[in-house]
Amino acid sequence: MTLRVGIIGAGPSGMAALRAFESARQKGTPMPDIMCFEKQNDWGGQWNSTWRMGLDVHGEPVHSSMYRHLWSNGPKECLEFSDYSFDEHFGRPISSFPPREVLFDYIKGRVEKSDVRKYVQFNTVARHTSWNEESQEFTLSVEDLATGTTTEHVFDKLIVSTGHFSFPNAPEFAGLGGFPGEVLHAHDFRGAERFAGKRLLLIGASYSAEDIGMQAHKMGAASVTFSYRTSPMGFDWPKNTLERPLVSRFDGSTAHFIDGTQGDFDAVVLCTGYQHKYPFLPAELSLKSKNVLYPRNLYKGVVWQQNTNLFYLGAQDQYYTFNMFDAQAWFARDVMTGKIELPPLAEREADIALWCERLAALPDHNAEADFQSDYLRGLIDATDYPPFDLDAVSALFKDWMHHKESDILGYRDMVHRSVVTGTMATRHHTRWLNAMDDSLARYLNGPSQDVDTGSLTTLTRELSAR
Amino acid sequence: MTLRVGIIGAGPSGMAALRAFESARQKGTPMPDIMCFEKQNDWGGQWNSTWRMGLDVHGEPVHSSMYRHLWSNGPKECLEFSDYSFDEHFGRPISSFPPREVLFDYIKGRVEKSDVRKYVQFNTVARHTSWNEESQEFTLSVEDLATGTTTEHVFDKLIVSTGHFSFPNAPEFAGLGGFPGEVLHAHDFRGAERFAGKRLLLIGASYSAEDIGMQAHKMGAASVTFSYRTSPMGFDWPKNTLERPLVSRFDGSTAHFIDGTQGDFDAVVLCTGYQHKYPFLPAELSLKSKNVLYPRNLYKGVVWQQNTNLFYLGAQDQYYTFNMFDAQAWFARDVMTGKIELPPLAEREADIALWCERLAALPDHNAEADFQSDYLRGLIDATDYPPFDLDAVSALFKDWMHHKESDILGYRDMVHRSVVTGTMATRHHTRWLNAMDDSLARYLNGPSQDVDTGSLTTLTRELSAR
Repeated sequence: MTLRVGIIGAGPSGMAALRAFESARQKGTPMPDIMCFEKQNDWGGQWNSTWRMGLDVHGEPVHSSMYRHLWSNGPKECLEFSDYSFDEHFGRPISSFPPREVLFDYIKGRVEKSDVRKYVQFNTVARHTSWNEESQEFTLSVEDLATGTTTEHVFDKLIVSTGHFSFPNAPEFAGLGGFPGEVLHAHDFRGAERFAGKRLLLIGASYSAEDIGMQAHKMGAASVTFSYRTSPMGFDWPKNTLERPLVSRFDGSTAHFIDGTQGDFDAVVLCTGYQHKYPFLPAELSLKSKNVLYPRNLYKGVVWQQNTNLFYLGAQDQYYTFNMFDAQAWFARDVMTGKIELPPLAEREADIALWCERLAALPDHNAEADFQSDYLRGLIDATDYPPFDLDAVSALFKDWMHHKESDILGYRDMVHRSVVTGTMATRHHTRWLNAMDDSLARYLNGPSQDVDTGSLTTLTRELSAR
Repeated sequence: MTLRVGIIGAGPSGMAALRAFESARQKGTPMPDIMCFEKQNDWGGQWNSTWRMGLDVHGEPVHSSMYRHLWSNGPKECLEFSDYSFDEHFGRPISSFPPREVLFDYIKGRVEKSDVRKYVQFNTVARHTSWNEESQEFTLSVEDLATGTTTEHVFDKLIVSTGHFSFPNAPEFAGLGGFPGEVLHAHDFRGAERFAGKRLLLIGASYSAEDIGMQAHKMGAASVTFSYRTSPMGFDWPKNTLERPLVSRFDGSTAHFIDGTQGDFDAVVLCTGYQHKYPFLPAELSLKSKNVLYPRNLYKGVVWQQNTNLFYLGAQDQYYTFNMFDAQAWFARDVMTGKIELPPLAEREADIALWCERLAALPDHNAEADFQSDYLRGLIDATDYPPFDLDAVSALFKDWMHHKESDILGYRDMVHRSVVTGTMATRHHTRWLNAMDDSLARYLNGPSQDVDTGSLTTLTRELSAR
């Protein structure tokens, strides 16, 4: 019987899974019976972002946490598909930090070329999964949100590719209920224009806080204050930006910090991360994890330990993104088809333990990037995913982090070289700080929004002179 | 075997169901095996409101659509339990339009007295329901959100009491994605203080629009504009408040209306209603309905036509609230225990059709109030729920609607007489327009926030002189 594969979610990970099977089919492997379920009306996951927040048009939790004026916060050269380059998609070199719509266009380009859209049922949400130990089958109940009908499907293998940056983690803060201004989680943030002239407090010290804070600065916030739990981000912030330790309580519009300082604010954004949440799975099949580079219970970061018919893609914290989902999808595919034979449970457990031990000992972000490069190397070596120079990408990550430290408002104006094609990125026509139009059309065609195109930051000038 | 009853949701309807069974138990009827599942950490449903919006602490859709400074928008005398009066709870007369916390306290008082909390599993969300025709049993899968465990329970009867004012209906408007200010649905509105000095646009012409608009006026909004689809509300609005027909499109911060007018706004609130949504039910058991006074497919507004083991409480549009949920719960209870015998399907269908025909012919809001009074009469006559003067409540509804037409900012300062105890409400120490503290403590103990306690509106003065 043909293998029956269910894929939940058609974001970058689900698209990678579709592409993985299609790639094998092109090389002569028979295609399994694939059904992919996507609750939105288009694929792209996080990249398919709208103005909606909270609940979507069908009353389902909004998936995307992205927003207007979101530009990639890492070099595109670190996430490039090795089987579909930026050059192939755009037909010309582009800059290293494109906005959302440009990257969305890129990931759609590959799967459109692959003719895999036919496997996806859109507007269809996964509701409930049960595993029958005897028959070794999953029964998945899905609801067509457009027609309001529930159907059940039986699968031999199930891929969970719904991501883990969609369900906010929002701790309680004393007095927050009485804060008179806007209070929202980063997940519900859709644009910083309305913070112009406002005193903004962001609770958190990771990517969301950093980017939303600098968005607010770019849009003219009166002040930006970050509140950290463990340690400050410590970037060379623009003026009117400062870091405070954790909020202890709110009293009206005043936030009190645990170091005894306080401040008055107009709005609060909780940049306090996300939960792993899989409401369509029974608890015993749900990954419970912090956002870490190697979640426990997933062999090779992909295969569910207690039931190797279940696969998670993109379930770890991410330096790499699209290309990592690819490597994982190729690996998962080969496990499903038996091309890769899994070692016994205890051996798999030992392998996970080894990775987790190494993770626990990593001294810094540079080491983390190397760690994930090594992780990808293992997956790619085991499959026919086109290899690329992982050490070069590791070096790219380190350059990028260094640029951020030197110039938090200017690092996106840097250019990097593709490890897939060797193409050097072009300098974008507009500095990130001046770019007030994040559309694909403006990105590709201009005109520039720089008032003085010569006004590069010190770092930009220094590096572009190299 | 003892009857096994599952109750989903411990808001006012679920609490009414618990109370209905407890009331019968006190009169000697054996208690069924009851399990009630509530996803929040306390009961009260809508009344258990926090600062959270979108998704809650566990990543579940936030249930409550209430907000700071929400005062009852109808007289409390229209919703009073006939088996637990306001006098019994507060020990003294109170005003007719109490704030959220006061009404929450009232509904909790009754069930605390009844010792039914033991039946409720909090932090527990219903995930999936299946009906076995052969065994005539429901299997309900629930997830304990605190421990992350999934369990299954089998029931003979299932009560859906999750309400239908929690999942926003939010239509698309062209250009809304580019609106630079805040855009939210009424469900996510938590307080109007931040609209001080702002030009607010509310799309909708029902209770949410009216109340959030007047909240914004109270908190100092620069202007309040309502946009209606069918017809304006037509109240005697304060200055800087106006009504426009539907928005055709947004262009930046400008809204264009279908009559060719336009306006610039700082924030948009979609007061576009709610969806009936029951993600824990298969489509064939889910009520699909607009917000109407008599949804099709529910006999006596309660019993699911195709499976009379399934019950919905509070699924209709509501003039009556708490006391209607009671009457429905008493009725559902007596159907479950066999005390009330159901007529055959076709007869039930004819009964529903009769109500729906009558509904379709109602000329105005006054007639709607009478319609729902008659509906309650039928339920109460069929059960031992303590009867009360429904005609008097109908008259109360009409007075209230008249007061709103005369004085949209002052109707909450009116007082009404209880039909349960005959007690006349007291005038509140602070006019609604001046009340800037909606806490239970301030409500009960004062002091007044009126600057000039003699400054009653024309209507208030006229009516208080009666």
